[in-house]
Amino acid sequence: MEPTHPALAAAIDESRLWDRLMRMGAIGALPEPGGVDRPALSAHDATARRLLVAWGRACGLRPASDSLGNLFLLRPGTGPDLPPVVIGSHLDTQPLGGRFDGAYGVLAALEVVAALDDLHFETRRPIAVVSWTNEEGCRFQPGCAGSAGFVGAVTVDQLRAGRDAEGIGFGEALDQMLAGDRADGLAVVPLGFPIAAYLEAHIEQGPQLERTGADVGIVTGMPCLHWYTVTVTGEAAHAGTTPRAARKDALSAACSMVKALEAVTADPQDVLRFTVGRFEVAPNSPNTVPDQVLFTLDLRHPDAAVLAALAARIPAVVASNAGPCRAVVTRTMAAPPRPFDPGLIALLQREATAIDLATLSLPSGAYHDARYLAERAPAAMIFVPCRGGISHHPSEYAEPAHLAAGARLLAAATVAVACRDD
Amino acid sequence: MEPTHPALAAAIDESRLWDRLMRMGAIGALPEPGGVDRPALSAHDATARRLLVAWGRACGLRPASDSLGNLFLLRPGTGPDLPPVVIGSHLDTQPLGGRFDGAYGVLAALEVVAALDDLHFETRRPIAVVSWTNEEGCRFQPGCAGSAGFVGAVTVDQLRAGRDAEGIGFGEALDQMLAGDRADGLAVVPLGFPIAAYLEAHIEQGPQLERTGADVGIVTGMPCLHWYTVTVTGEAAHAGTTPRAARKDALSAACSMVKALEAVTADPQDVLRFTVGRFEVAPNSPNTVPDQVLFTLDLRHPDAAVLAALAARIPAVVASNAGPCRAVVTRTMAAPPRPFDPGLIALLQREATAIDLATLSLPSGAYHDARYLAERAPAAMIFVPCRGGISHHPSEYAEPAHLAAGARLLAAATVAVACRDD
Repeated sequence: MEPTHPALAAAIDESRLWDRLMRMGAIGALPEPGGVDRPALSAHDATARRLLVAWGRACGLRPASDSLGNLFLLRPGTGPDLPPVVIGSHLDTQPLGGRFDGAYGVLAALEVVAALDDLHFETRRPIAVVSWTNEEGCRFQPGCAGSAGFVGAVTVDQLRAGRDAEGIGFGEALDQMLAGDRADGLAVVPLGFPIAAYLEAHIEQGPQLERTGADVGIVTGMPCLHWYTVTVTGEAAHAGTTPRAARKDALSAACSMVKALEAVTADPQDVLRFTVGRFEVAPNSPNTVPDQVLFTLDLRHPDAAVLAALAARIPAVVASNAGPCRAVVTRTMAAPPRPFDPGLIALLQREATAIDLATLSLPSGAYHDARYLAERAPAAMIFVPCRGGISHHPSEYAEPAHLAAGARLLAAATVAVACRDD
Repeated sequence: MEPTHPALAAAIDESRLWDRLMRMGAIGALPEPGGVDRPALSAHDATARRLLVAWGRACGLRPASDSLGNLFLLRPGTGPDLPPVVIGSHLDTQPLGGRFDGAYGVLAALEVVAALDDLHFETRRPIAVVSWTNEEGCRFQPGCAGSAGFVGAVTVDQLRAGRDAEGIGFGEALDQMLAGDRADGLAVVPLGFPIAAYLEAHIEQGPQLERTGADVGIVTGMPCLHWYTVTVTGEAAHAGTTPRAARKDALSAACSMVKALEAVTADPQDVLRFTVGRFEVAPNSPNTVPDQVLFTLDLRHPDAAVLAALAARIPAVVASNAGPCRAVVTRTMAAPPRPFDPGLIALLQREATAIDLATLSLPSGAYHDARYLAERAPAAMIFVPCRGGISHHPSEYAEPAHLAAGARLLAAATVAVACRDD
């Protein structure tokens, strides 16, 4: 018999979840309080993985990984050969990241199975806690590598060909991680095995839950997302001897482009997101006119047509601000909007009501692994409030009570789907 | 008896000088043809130093270094206890530098003493070939460290406290270099020993000699130079979730500042030099709004009053473009204009006429070690043409015949000063 809602909610242990988040956050901790730098497929990522596997084994889960390093902790079901309900998120962080983005979703999922273990309750379908490889896309591009590769949105070969800023290949770093998995006795599972449903809990990374006072957010879906790289090439010259008229200053041109692109992307509703996050100057010496700048554009909007119209304008805006330099615009990603499964959204709403959580229905501005899983299975997400809407920063913070509430909704929904008789 | 002008000119060996420049340029060579990356106090700098010492010993010079790593190759004079005529430049390069900036002045000086050696001619005053430490100021700030420290314009302690981008201290790197000197048997000379005169040959790094067809440039002096660092602090935020109105985007503010400073420094005569050469973004991740940008300003003008007036405006221009961010402007260098010694300039002109070189009198837009030496002794500089005025770049190039002509003028002037009876 299924545990009652109060029994299941009570079995979610707020302090155990918080304690594990803090212990996980110590792996790759930065000098800044709360800061974490745990790049995908790094030594810190491997340490985090070993800890997660140990915690999983302690509550009877069977660890396994696929050829992209996606890590699964498997809990059997009572029904014969049913696909699992997969719950989780990722353990990699931004270079100056926090303790909650990603790790919360993984450890909330672990808390769900730990609670079921405490209740000695077996679900009909298996449950798998997952940690997807390289969600952040900082060290290697593209992001959501593990989940995109799992559903076949990119090939393993494409991903393996990626290189980090120091020239280390994704394939090389991955093989080292997988060798660690084998040494640790992990089973091998195939990419893209069938799954019943995917649920992911995550901090909101925006201000809306905090502002409205909701306990949890039920996410309607993902925006359309475009990434571009703009490379501006000028000519290096001595800062003291070269008159302005004779310069081909790549930095000056790049700054003009950034300001012009900002103007073009101004949105009175402030729904369109435009970010220049990476900006690299060469040779980057105080007394040399820069001959090259590379910068990235991150553009998001719920409406694909809005981004398509903008995309068509970018090359002209860049070219008309290049001055004497040359500029090349390359699109590195174009992902359509992805609504989540209406059935799962309704189920989350029902379960939240049953355990007395105030909900807000909202789209996700950020990108998550759930976006790719939604291509293969019913998928949905739960958001919890985070302070000031801040994430990707050491000051990222979420209240233990909010984190526990999100885990309680994840537990209720997981049990409902895993026990459903269909 | 002094060698005749034709004999001395003939003793300057164009192919020996060229060959040594190419061999020196192989130390720290980049994949780009002609490119060199030989940072101050690096392993490549040490290799370059060992080679210079070996070449110096081969023509009887005595190597020595001072406590800042300035390297001297000493040739005795016939007069008792006279201060030497010092000739040279530096061996460090920009990160994406060429084979001629600096190395030419050192190897032209070596060619002068090699020619005197071939002629078995002894001067009255000693001659010292010098390579000054960290002229470029790329790895450690400030530049012209060795020459500024030699004349007491900065203290050894101030210089030793500098750190490179990887956190390595100038003092630490210097001590390693000096340990290498001692192991190689170099003598120790004090900082700031008396010198009779300082002459430096250098590529022009600008277009004027090439445009006018002059063989050599006789440099009238150095411009006024200011360096600033601008640090812009905003707030990191998620690219997908944070509306523009809620952002404190340090990159956006920094780009506005750069464009506004460009406007303020526009000069119809194009004499004022304004360069933003270094521009560092943190956390520099495509999907995170940057919370910090650090950029440098390099400002030069022959008239100190022009720069002083500009300097007074910079903080307001920066502040009014900071938007929701905070910005701090720090002046890291302010050097007054420095005219060269009129007597030495006249001597260079006479010697150039005597060996049939067409000259152009011109100020230096670039900064050189001669600027500091001029605070302590009569100093002057010789420029040679470089292709397209390009420097600080692998495509930096000077014709062997032009390099030899500059060395011939350096030889004639050195002999004249070193034999002068005053």
